[in-house]
Amino acid sequence: MQFLLEVVDILTNYIRKTFDRSTKVLDFHHPHQLLEGMEGFNLELSDQPESLEQILVDCRDTLKYGVRTGHPRFFNQLSTGLDIVGLAGEWLTSTANTNMFTYEIAPVFVLMEQLTLRKMMDIVGWRDDEGDGIFSPGGAISNMYSVMVARYKYFPEVKTKGMCAAPRLVLFTSEHSHYSFKKASAALGFGTDNVILLNTDDKGRVIAADLEAKVIAAKQKGYVPIYVNATAGTTVYGAFDPINEIADICEKYNIWLHVDGAWGGSLLMSRKHRHKLSGVERANSVTWNPHKMMGVPLQCSAILVRERGLLEGCNSMCAGYLFQPDKQYDVTYDTGDKAIQCGRHVDIFKFWLMWKAKGTIGFEQHIDKCLDLAAYLYNKIKNRDGYKMVYDAEPQHTNVCFWFFPPSLRGLPDGKDKRERLHKVAPKIKAMMMESGSTMVGYQPQGDKVNFFRMVISNHAATRSDIDFLTDEIERLGQDL
Amino acid sequence: MQFLLEVVDILTNYIRKTFDRSTKVLDFHHPHQLLEGMEGFNLELSDQPESLEQILVDCRDTLKYGVRTGHPRFFNQLSTGLDIVGLAGEWLTSTANTNMFTYEIAPVFVLMEQLTLRKMMDIVGWRDDEGDGIFSPGGAISNMYSVMVARYKYFPEVKTKGMCAAPRLVLFTSEHSHYSFKKASAALGFGTDNVILLNTDDKGRVIAADLEAKVIAAKQKGYVPIYVNATAGTTVYGAFDPINEIADICEKYNIWLHVDGAWGGSLLMSRKHRHKLSGVERANSVTWNPHKMMGVPLQCSAILVRERGLLEGCNSMCAGYLFQPDKQYDVTYDTGDKAIQCGRHVDIFKFWLMWKAKGTIGFEQHIDKCLDLAAYLYNKIKNRDGYKMVYDAEPQHTNVCFWFFPPSLRGLPDGKDKRERLHKVAPKIKAMMMESGSTMVGYQPQGDKVNFFRMVISNHAATRSDIDFLTDEIERLGQDL
Repeated sequence: MQFLLEVVDILTNYIRKTFDRSTKVLDFHHPHQLLEGMEGFNLELSDQPESLEQILVDCRDTLKYGVRTGHPRFFNQLSTGLDIVGLAGEWLTSTANTNMFTYEIAPVFVLMEQLTLRKMMDIVGWRDDEGDGIFSPGGAISNMYSVMVARYKYFPEVKTKGMCAAPRLVLFTSEHSHYSFKKASAALGFGTDNVILLNTDDKGRVIAADLEAKVIAAKQKGYVPIYVNATAGTTVYGAFDPINEIADICEKYNIWLHVDGAWGGSLLMSRKHRHKLSGVERANSVTWNPHKMMGVPLQCSAILVRERGLLEGCNSMCAGYLFQPDKQYDVTYDTGDKAIQCGRHVDIFKFWLMWKAKGTIGFEQHIDKCLDLAAYLYNKIKNRDGYKMVYDAEPQHTNVCFWFFPPSLRGLPDGKDKRERLHKVAPKIKAMMMESGSTMVGYQPQGDKVNFFRMVISNHAATRSDIDFLTDEIERLGQDL
Repeated sequence: MQFLLEVVDILTNYIRKTFDRSTKVLDFHHPHQLLEGMEGFNLELSDQPESLEQILVDCRDTLKYGVRTGHPRFFNQLSTGLDIVGLAGEWLTSTANTNMFTYEIAPVFVLMEQLTLRKMMDIVGWRDDEGDGIFSPGGAISNMYSVMVARYKYFPEVKTKGMCAAPRLVLFTSEHSHYSFKKASAALGFGTDNVILLNTDDKGRVIAADLEAKVIAAKQKGYVPIYVNATAGTTVYGAFDPINEIADICEKYNIWLHVDGAWGGSLLMSRKHRHKLSGVERANSVTWNPHKMMGVPLQCSAILVRERGLLEGCNSMCAGYLFQPDKQYDVTYDTGDKAIQCGRHVDIFKFWLMWKAKGTIGFEQHIDKCLDLAAYLYNKIKNRDGYKMVYDAEPQHTNVCFWFFPPSLRGLPDGKDKRERLHKVAPKIKAMMMESGSTMVGYQPQGDKVNFFRMVISNHAATRSDIDFLTDEIERLGQDL
């Protein structure tokens, strides 16, 4: 117990420093350096135990050589920040060390999950007699659930007979959508060739007419369109597909509509921004990751399904050793058979506790603040020397995508040479950022666009001064490239 | 920060009581009771924030109405116990709050995963140039990976073209194996009808001759056998299928051999018991859950694959925004594209830290001690009045399966009436245990066998006195049934 308190001491020190802007975001080392062993820090495992003193050193070093994802200047992923109530919730969760499969061993957590899912479904706009759901290990798995459930709805015999029992099924999703749809179609036996990518407009939103044309073309080939994903907040652009227009087409052709709101679903909690998901209540299923925009510690992702019974029908196997029908309590609360998992980590408590502590309005403020910061960045750089926006409009989410041109590139004529040089700028600046440990931001190419920065903001500890720091840092590091 | 320390105070009190045998294992309430709200504990979420004082009360009540899975008298699941070093590791993990997909944001954890997987593969017996793996969210997902990888090995075109590109594929697994194989075949598009169940002997072990007969029969029907699962430690009986005999058949017919060691894989760390998995090095893939028999906090499950490159080949989609090829470090350490997940929780650190603190020999002692306790229970009850073993032999793992006959049943002639009454005994005793909060143990029917108790031991805090307590409690509660 003394040992545990010493670890707590290490952790609270780490937390304090995380919020201190004079602390570096990371202390970068190459894999071979860490593998060779830093002073006193040896990753190798051995037959004999180490002393608890050494274990404490190992804890300190693990944090020292890691990345401070809660630092106000860490902008690298969609999940950032370190919420203290959420963290306390996660510490309690690991202390309770239980499993979501039955009410029997997780009574409180099972009920919290049910109530929280209900609250989320109310926010989506589903009626009281609609809606089911489950927390899953991340957005990719939530999206996979949606594809499975859609298949079960239209071709339930696939559960027992396999994909051979169905005709050739095709799925539709934006060219800008998350790669988990391809992963799911590979895993579930659809095949990635049967994922039909939809064209997007200049802001990265699906063109509904393109969807309809492709649905018709697929049907003409004899394929069966069963699933359309509309993304609410794409990974790179933060774009919101037009859900109502897509829902009209889905209804016309009797196709399952999924809304991947892993990133943008949280905007439903903001009265100012929820119009971006207008029509979401028409979706058959929704992915929504509180661990992204709502600052809940990793992992916390929900899959919501409008029609009740499908999740259970699709996945249940009625294992006798877990889901005994002759228990003394109401066994409809044993919800584990809805999952593709058996054991399932308790992801709900930290989220529930944060909701208690912040209230719905606290989440709304968090979200509005982050979107304001994104607008601040956009307005700051849209006409600034050396910057070019990847698309020229107010950010739809907190994603701000831009190129930075070092002075040496600014006078060059447009063309292949300039593009090739520009393509190398973001990786170089990013590498220097990581070496200096000052800040972190993502970059990538997309389609025919060369590497550009993707700034995202989800940490409520970030302020305008941190945004200013980022642009200053990009300019400083890119000055002589 | 003060708040966090107050939560720590609540948690350390909880931990102390967990190890105190005078504390109840649980304080049972029905779902409707908890939903109606206990005094001062309201599960409902609202728009407005609660005070931090109330949040602390919520934390206390969440623990109060939960189940103490670390209590030495909690025997209900395969995962029990509360290891303090593992817990400290999990607290650090949630404080670091990062994601396993890239070295970029989880450098230390990615390397720990790699080294720990290597160590596990050495213990399995694979050569240095063999072996790959990943930690996944539980044994069901690990088993699902094994099926996916097997399919990719034999029919890689399924990834792009779907299951239609393959002939009718069949899988083989024991009638006593975990239900995750059926879940996986439903999800992945094989269909549960194409899972062929294998007969077992009186100790619950697969009969190899039955496998060969069924493989031949399937081939005669034109089906393609691609996958056999051999269970190392079945969920109910703790039986170990004969891996070498099964491997001979798999080699003869060119079938993928998976060993589901979710429960029994840990016995590989015991010089005394590892012979039960003899032949495991011949497997193409192995599931091994440190969160079960090794006492690692939930969740911690590994899927190991002998042939390198398959996991990556099967699952990779090369998302440009995460797996940029032009990073400044060796990007082969960005292992996230092997996963079906995108974000992936850090499950490795607690395990690595426990391994450091206990050494390999510490795990061995833990495992040997639990198996000794199971043998103690078996020897105690095998000839005791009122008990009957479900199969009459030394336990293979820590599972001890038995019926308890209340005095009123002991004189009855064998037959339908006695069986029906016996079927109701375990649920009744279990319900009384839960109401009184004294201990918890699982029960289930299996095949034509009516409800019996399944005792399992994985908590190193359990002692012979706790085993004695369990039998005393069963006898006390069952006295008047």
